Amino acid sequence: MKDTMNQVDAYIGNNLDRYVGELVRLCAQPSVAAQDMGMHECANLVEDILHGHGADVTVYQTAGYPIIVGRIAGKSERTLLFYNHYDVQPVEPLNLWTTPPFDPSVREGKIFGRGAKDDKGEIIARLAAIDALSQAYDGQLPCTVMFVIEGEEEISSPNIAAFVRQHANVLRCQGAVWEGGDIGRNGYPILALGVRGILEVELSVGTLARDAHSGGAHVMPSAAWRLIWALSTLKGLDERIRIPGFYDDAHGPSAKDLAIFDRMWVNNLAYEEQLRNLYGIREFAGGRHGADLLRSVFSPTCNVQGMGSGYQGEGSKTIVPSEAKAKIDFRLVPDQDPEDIFQKLRGYLDNQGFQDVTTTMMGWMGPARTDLDDPLVQLVVRTGHEVYGGLPSIVPLIGGSSPGYAFKEPLKIPVVTAGVGYWDNRPHAPDEHIRIQDFQNGMRHLARILDGFAKM
Amino acid sequence: MKDTMNQVDAYIGNNLDRYVGELVRLCAQPSVAAQDMGMHECANLVEDILHGHGADVTVYQTAGYPIIVGRIAGKSERTLLFYNHYDVQPVEPLNLWTTPPFDPSVREGKIFGRGAKDDKGEIIARLAAIDALSQAYDGQLPCTVMFVIEGEEEISSPNIAAFVRQHANVLRCQGAVWEGGDIGRNGYPILALGVRGILEVELSVGTLARDAHSGGAHVMPSAAWRLIWALSTLKGLDERIRIPGFYDDAHGPSAKDLAIFDRMWVNNLAYEEQLRNLYGIREFAGGRHGADLLRSVFSPTCNVQGMGSGYQGEGSKTIVPSEAKAKIDFRLVPDQDPEDIFQKLRGYLDNQGFQDVTTTMMGWMGPARTDLDDPLVQLVVRTGHEVYGGLPSIVPLIGGSSPGYAFKEPLKIPVVTAGVGYWDNRPHAPDEHIRIQDFQNGMRHLARILDGFAKM
Repeated sequence: MKDTMNQVDAYIGNNLDRYVGELVRLCAQPSVAAQDMGMHECANLVEDILHGHGADVTVYQTAGYPIIVGRIAGKSERTLLFYNHYDVQPVEPLNLWTTPPFDPSVREGKIFGRGAKDDKGEIIARLAAIDALSQAYDGQLPCTVMFVIEGEEEISSPNIAAFVRQHANVLRCQGAVWEGGDIGRNGYPILALGVRGILEVELSVGTLARDAHSGGAHVMPSAAWRLIWALSTLKGLDERIRIPGFYDDAHGPSAKDLAIFDRMWVNNLAYEEQLRNLYGIREFAGGRHGADLLRSVFSPTCNVQGMGSGYQGEGSKTIVPSEAKAKIDFRLVPDQDPEDIFQKLRGYLDNQGFQDVTTTMMGWMGPARTDLDDPLVQLVVRTGHEVYGGLPSIVPLIGGSSPGYAFKEPLKIPVVTAGVGYWDNRPHAPDEHIRIQDFQNGMRHLARILDGFAKM
Repeated sequence: MKDTMNQVDAYIGNNLDRYVGELVRLCAQPSVAAQDMGMHECANLVEDILHGHGADVTVYQTAGYPIIVGRIAGKSERTLLFYNHYDVQPVEPLNLWTTPPFDPSVREGKIFGRGAKDDKGEIIARLAAIDALSQAYDGQLPCTVMFVIEGEEEISSPNIAAFVRQHANVLRCQGAVWEGGDIGRNGYPILALGVRGILEVELSVGTLARDAHSGGAHVMPSAAWRLIWALSTLKGLDERIRIPGFYDDAHGPSAKDLAIFDRMWVNNLAYEEQLRNLYGIREFAGGRHGADLLRSVFSPTCNVQGMGSGYQGEGSKTIVPSEAKAKIDFRLVPDQDPEDIFQKLRGYLDNQGFQDVTTTMMGWMGPARTDLDDPLVQLVVRTGHEVYGGLPSIVPLIGGSSPGYAFKEPLKIPVVTAGVGYWDNRPHAPDEHIRIQDFQNGMRHLARILDGFAKM
């Protein structure tokens, strides 16, 4: 085993530049699902790349973008599923990027570009781990690997759940490594055992056939004010969401979860100050501080992704706006149901007199959790310790969302994370990047997980 | 007199096409002060046009755009001042214009283009009235006329008040005809005796050095929410403005004002339905209806011109926005003081805990009123009756603003309106236009006002 891993590590070290080049090539291909930018070109490129690493590839068409399934058969039929996505977040505002988002730049030991972390860097690292382990075993993996790479993760994966239900036989496996995975400030990986769900809704209101002169504001109904008033009823300064029944199915942290958060907090007392500095924060949402910054991930959220109405250019324009829109997302905790929350939101707006504010569901994903005591979890912890020299930090629930719920239930599998990120990757933001050192260590960790999984 | 006016009317009729052409030329020159578009070119063009009509022109530089003063000496030194402006409102959204805003189109007896009404059509109509009257009097006007044409009316005229104070001697006159003036649905002119003031403020808040992933929304402070909460404290669903002391100096309508509103209402019972249809209104602001739609012009307003935060593109983007902005305007009634209201707004936001929301004054104008019994008012009423065949409707106060306050006080003059508009000109909106019939009648009315003013 030691020899095998020495070979794996040597292979990765010797071929690192090649994988950096492969990631640069993949990041140079735009793939913004929200804007229908470069999606099919990127799907083709991912298919080519999987072929290049010896996978049997099947491309499944969906109502949206294709889902790519790549299978690499190993000595055993025991199968580990890798979930990834080839779509990325929009890149605006462009002026805040140091180098262009789709012209990847390698500098200062980092790779910059949209998708470098989320999620193209993860795809290439996994392929590198497979190559390295396969080479150490004379050309055949000890277990089977199946990639499921979708193109709609950043738009809430509207088609993945139905796809998994429909192809549960093809996708049969004994565990999954989810997309993502970060290295903490202590240098050790963070292992997330749960994700929050998400419900994305567009609110829209129109009050006038066209904008009116603001000299008539005493009688002309304003779309901007209707939206402001509607939004202000959803959440107050205390961050408490006011939709009746919103918290009915929201489970707070267990005693075990709280103990983990307390340990995390004690192990990283600088966290608050670091987060404050990284984002230039004067006051956290709801005045949160201390260990509550960690625990409050069990508090579901109501976030405004964006909103707009009327004149937003230079100077002023004396109009009463005829239209106003906002995009909001709710992050949901186990066992909140996105469709139930959407109904409650609509009912609440109606009851508050906002029948004129339309609500359109843009997408949703359910929350999901894996048990701390699962053998796959223990394998990730053990191999993480080996690669990074310290015990991974277990996180009971992370703030983000992932279509884990769509796989976990129908396939009845544990889901873990192991990846190439660190605390300042800036996913979804300008200057997204990964550190090459994390890229390399992620490959080493993933190769060990594969090896251990084969022997489980 | 009758003969003189017959000559005036004949001249206007015979030369109408030429004035339409002159207006098209002026409207073809963009002049958006808010966007610094074409302003100096337009000032030069206005100067040329005034010269072409025999005026002595002086161009005064200001901290902003030049103010053009054009004087046409008459037989008597008695001077009537014409206030106008050459700047126009921004033209966005462009896709709602039937023909391009700066490529004026004459069709169906109308002239379409940004500024056709507000305020370029008024300028050309006044010049036509002067030409016509001058020709009827063998080449010399019976009184002196002075144009004051500024370039910053649509951005709240930040420099006009100081200009008038500084040049009060040059601007000495015995009365002023303000910009604007509309024909009502009954075909008779509307004579506005007062305007509201305006205070324009930009609210801005930043909570994060950059947008954050919305998975962190339970701790990341949202600029969008801060702005929503701050705005929602300014005004409730009842349209009542919550800033302490806001209404202290706001005078409601007098008994005479109320009597006028009641007569206006009785004379046009279809008004509510017409306004509803014109703007596709389901419910008026604050649930107003009936005669209150007129009287409530004495209610000062708090309007959101526009607001924006975060992602406003297609689809969704799971971010917590780092910045949010809103532009608001308050329309103020006599004797509210814009600078006092600004201080009260700032104090209120501070008291409500919104020290993080910055307030920038974008501009202001005071409210102003002229007495119903002034001889100039009676002249406009009498001549309006003659041209339009019915008594003009007196409006005690209109909803819009104008830098009347800047002239009225230092020059101690009555201020009236007489113009080329009608109820559906769409000023500040797409498809701004005037009817050529109104253009012609406006010229005829103005010529009679000039003639009567000389004899007063």
